[in-house]
Amino acid sequence: MPAASPSEQNRPPDTVFFLSDFGTADEFVGVVHAVIAAGAPGTTVIDLTHHIPPFDVRAGSHTLVRAVPHLGPGVVLGVVDPGVGTVRRGIGLEVVLTGGGTMSFVGPDNGLLVAAAEAASEAPIATAVELARDTLPIDRGATFDGRDLFGPAAARLCAGDALASLGEPIDPESLVRLMGGVVERGRLHDGRDCLRAEVLWVDHFGNLQLAATVADARVAGIPARGTIELAARIESGRVDPDGLPRSLVPDGVHLRCVEAFGDLKQGEFGLLVDANGHLAVVAGEASAAHWLNVVAGELLILAW
Amino acid sequence: MPAASPSEQNRPPDTVFFLSDFGTADEFVGVVHAVIAAGAPGTTVIDLTHHIPPFDVRAGSHTLVRAVPHLGPGVVLGVVDPGVGTVRRGIGLEVVLTGGGTMSFVGPDNGLLVAAAEAASEAPIATAVELARDTLPIDRGATFDGRDLFGPAAARLCAGDALASLGEPIDPESLVRLMGGVVERGRLHDGRDCLRAEVLWVDHFGNLQLAATVADARVAGIPARGTIELAARIESGRVDPDGLPRSLVPDGVHLRCVEAFGDLKQGEFGLLVDANGHLAVVAGEASAAHWLNVVAGELLILAW
Amino acid sequence: MPAASPSEQNRPPDTVFFLSDFGTADEFVGVVHAVIAAGAPGTTVIDLTHHIPPFDVRAGSHTLVRAVPHLGPGVVLGVVDPGVGTVRRGIGLEVVLTGGGTMSFVGPDNGLLVAAAEAASEAPIATAVELARDTLPIDRGATFDGRDLFGPAAARLCAGDALASLGEPIDPESLVRLMGGVVERGRLHDGRDCLRAEVLWVDHFGNLQLAATVADARVAGIPARGTIELAARIESGRVDPDGLPRSLVPDGVHLRCVEAFGDLKQGEFGLLVDANGHLAVVAGEASAAHWLNVVAGELLILAW
Repeated sequence: MPAASPSEQNRPPDTVFFLSDFGTADEFVGVVHAVIAAGAPGTTVIDLTHHIPPFDVRAGSHTLVRAVPHLGPGVVLGVVDPGVGTVRRGIGLEVVLTGGGTMSFVGPDNGLLVAAAEAASEAPIATAVELARDTLPIDRGATFDGRDLFGPAAARLCAGDALASLGEPIDPESLVRLMGGVVERGRLHDGRDCLRAEVLWVDHFGNLQLAATVADARVAGIPARGTIELAARIESGRVDPDGLPRSLVPDGVHLRCVEAFGDLKQGEFGLLVDANGHLAVVAGEASAAHWLNVVAGELLILAW
Repeated sequence: MPAASPSEQNRPPDTVFFLSDFGTADEFVGVVHAVIAAGAPGTTVIDLTHHIPPFDVRAGSHTLVRAVPHLGPGVVLGVVDPGVGTVRRGIGLEVVLTGGGTMSFVGPDNGLLVAAAEAASEAPIATAVELARDTLPIDRGATFDGRDLFGPAAARLCAGDALASLGEPIDPESLVRLMGGVVERGRLHDGRDCLRAEVLWVDHFGNLQLAATVADARVAGIPARGTIELAARIESGRVDPDGLPRSLVPDGVHLRCVEAFGDLKQGEFGLLVDANGHLAVVAGEASAAHWLNVVAGELLILAW
Repeated sequence: MPAASPSEQNRPPDTVFFLSDFGTADEFVGVVHAVIAAGAPGTTVIDLTHHIPPFDVRAGSHTLVRAVPHLGPGVVLGVVDPGVGTVRRGIGLEVVLTGGGTMSFVGPDNGLLVAAAEAASEAPIATAVELARDTLPIDRGATFDGRDLFGPAAARLCAGDALASLGEPIDPESLVRLMGGVVERGRLHDGRDCLRAEVLWVDHFGNLQLAATVADARVAGIPARGTIELAARIESGRVDPDGLPRSLVPDGVHLRCVEAFGDLKQGEFGLLVDANGHLAVVAGEASAAHWLNVVAGELLILAW
C-alpha cells in the first residue's frame, strides 16, 4: 500500500473501512453510513463485509487480519458485538503504519480488533482509549452502538478529532484477546509426517484457508510439488447425535500441490498458497468445503 | 442528526439514500448509481438496503420510517414498485427538517414513501408533485423506472433542480397510504393485562420488532423489570392446510424484560426497547424468529 | 447517458464500475475498493454486482452487456476468473463512446469483457493491451488478481495513466470470445409459427430474459397483443438421473402479451419487452423461474 508523505501524517483520515455482522437485509449499514456522512462529510466509506456470521467475533477478527495489510491509512470500524448495551467497553486503538500514516480501530473490546491492529503494523499499539458515551434519548434502547457510539466515533476521527480526545486512555494489555488458530507438526502412527491445522475461514468459493502459513509449511517440510494426503479424521467440535464426531473426510483424499486454482482439473482437490500467504485446501472450479463437508473451526491433518 | 446551517438550506442535496427490492444479484442497483453519478457528479449514494422482499411495499415503508430520523438532509430514493409501467403515479415529496435542511422522497405512489416523509419531520409535507415522464426509446420496455424515472429525478434534485420543476403539483391528501401496525391493549380471560401487537419487522438477527413503542408499553403498564409471558396463540394470517392457524407459540414462553441483548443467557427469550424505541422480542445470541417460528405481520400477545 | 464535452475527453476517468463473482461474504470486494482508493484517491467505485455465480464467465458477460449502455465514461473492472494464476492473459480494452469520452475494460481474457466493450460503442475496440504483471511477494499466492493486477490497473487509469502504458498491445482479433445466445425462428409440426430462444438471465424477481430482442420478435411476427403459448418441452442440458430432460414446462402455459408487470394478475404468466429491449417471460408479482422451473441457459419455445 502506498505510504503517506510526512505532510499527510497530520491530516485526518479520509476513509473508513467498515466490517460488521449486520447483514444487508436491513437498514443498519446504510444508517451508519449516513451517520458518518453527516459527521464527516466527504469521507469515503468502504464496506469490507457485513456478512460475518451473527455474533461470530472470531470470524470478524480473522477477516480484519486478512484485510488490513491491503487497506492503507484510515479508520477501521468493526462491529460484531453480542455484548452491546452491557458493561463491555467500547474502544479506540491507533497504530502508526510502517509505510507512514496511521490506522485507527473503533469497536467493541471483545477481541474483534486487537489482532488486526497488531497485524497492520510492525509497531505496537500507540494509543488505546475507552470510548466515552453520550447519554441516549430515553425513548430508545441502547442496542445499536454502530449507530450511536462507534459510527460517530469514526466520524469524529475523520472530522479531525484525535483519538485521545474520544475517551480515557487504557492499557493495551487490558484488551480482550482471542486465542490464535491451531497449527501443530506431528507424525502419524504409520510414520508419515503430518501437519494439523485449524480451518480459519471458508470463503465464498468454498476454499478452506488453514491457520498454517507458507512459513509453517516450509518448516514442516510439506513438499511444494506432488501430492499429499488429507488424512481421514477431522477432529472437530461437531458431534453426531450418537456422540461420534460428525465430519469424517473420506479416507484417501489426495491434494495435488499447485500454484493456482486453474492448475486443477474440475473437481480435483488441491493445496496451494493463497493470496494471504496461508495454505488452503481447494478444488478446481468447485467448493472444497461442500465436497469435503468441512466448516470453519475444524482441524484438518495433512500427511506426506 | 446535525442541523444544516441557514446558508446550507439553499444548496442542493449532496446525498441520495437508496432503498429497493432489487436485490444485489443483478446489475440494477449499480446502474441506478451510474445514472445518478452521470446526472449529478459527486453525489454520495448511500444504500439503505436492496433486500426488501420483492413487491413488499409495507416492509419497504417500515424500513424507511425506521431509517429517516438518522439520515439528515438529502434525497430518499425508494423503489418497491410492483405497479411499474402501469397508471400508478411516480411522485416526489419534500419536507423541511426540524433541524434545518430538507429531505425529498422520490418513488412510486403506492404507500412506500408517505409515512417516512411524515416521520422525518414535525412539519407537514411541503411539496408534492407527480413526476413528469420522458418518452422512452421504443426498443425498450417501461419496466425499470428506477433507472428511467426515479434515479434521474433524484439526480436532478442533486444537480440543483427544485422538486416543483419535476412535475405537476398534487394534493398530499391524494397520496396512497398503508394502514398502520396493530397495537391493542386488553385483558385475558384469566384476568391478566395484555397487549396485542403486530410484528412489524424481523431483522437479520431474528429480533421481532413490535408495532408497540416504549410509550405504548408505558401506557399499558408493562413492567420494566421481571418476566412477562408471550401468550400462547399467535393470531395470524398463516393457516395450515387443515385450516388451523399455522403458528402457535408454545404455551408458557417467558420473556425476561432486559435492557440489552447481552443481559440474556444464550438462547433465553427476552423483551427490550430496541434502538428505534419499539418493543422487541429477542433471544440471547439466537434468532427469536427462528425459535418462536414467527414472521413479520403476525400478532403477538404479551401478558402480565 | 450524458456525453462528455471535448475538454473532458482528456481527463482521466473518475469512476470504476466493478463486477465480480466474489460474493460479499468475504473482504474481497472491500480490499479491491481500498486498492483503488489508495492508487487513485477520489475515484467513485460503483458496484454493479458481485453475485455472478462462481466461475460463470457467461453470466458475467451478459450482465456487463446489459449494463454498459447506461454507465457513461469510466473504467469497467470485471473479475470472473477461474483461470487466475495460469497462463490466461490479463487484458485492458478501450472504446470511444458515441456520446464522447472513453470506456475502458480491465479483467481476464476469457470472454468476460469483449462483448460488453463492443456493446458500449458503435466504434470498434480502439486499444487492447495485455496487462504487464509485477512480481508478487514470495510469501503470497497468485490467486487474487482482482487485488494484485486488475484493481491496480483500474486505479492507474483513474490516476491518469494511458491504457497503452499498462502493457504490450495485442490484436483484438486474438481476444477470447463466447458464443452468443440462441435465437431461431421455426414452425411447429401443427403449423404454428414459433421462436426458440435461450434464457440468457434469470433476475432477482424470477423474470426470464430471452436472447430474442424486440427486433427479433418483430421479424418473427410475434403478436404484440393477445396470448401466445410457451410450448411444452424445454430443450435443455439438464437431464434427470433416468436420462430424460429434467425440465418440462407443463403443456398449455399461456403467456399474455403485456407492456408492464402490473398488467398481469397475481401469478399470471406473461410476455413483455423488458428494460433491455429483450423479450422476457414473467409472472404477476411472482417468480416465473420458480413456477416454470427454468434456469439460465435453457431453450424456450414460444408458439402462436
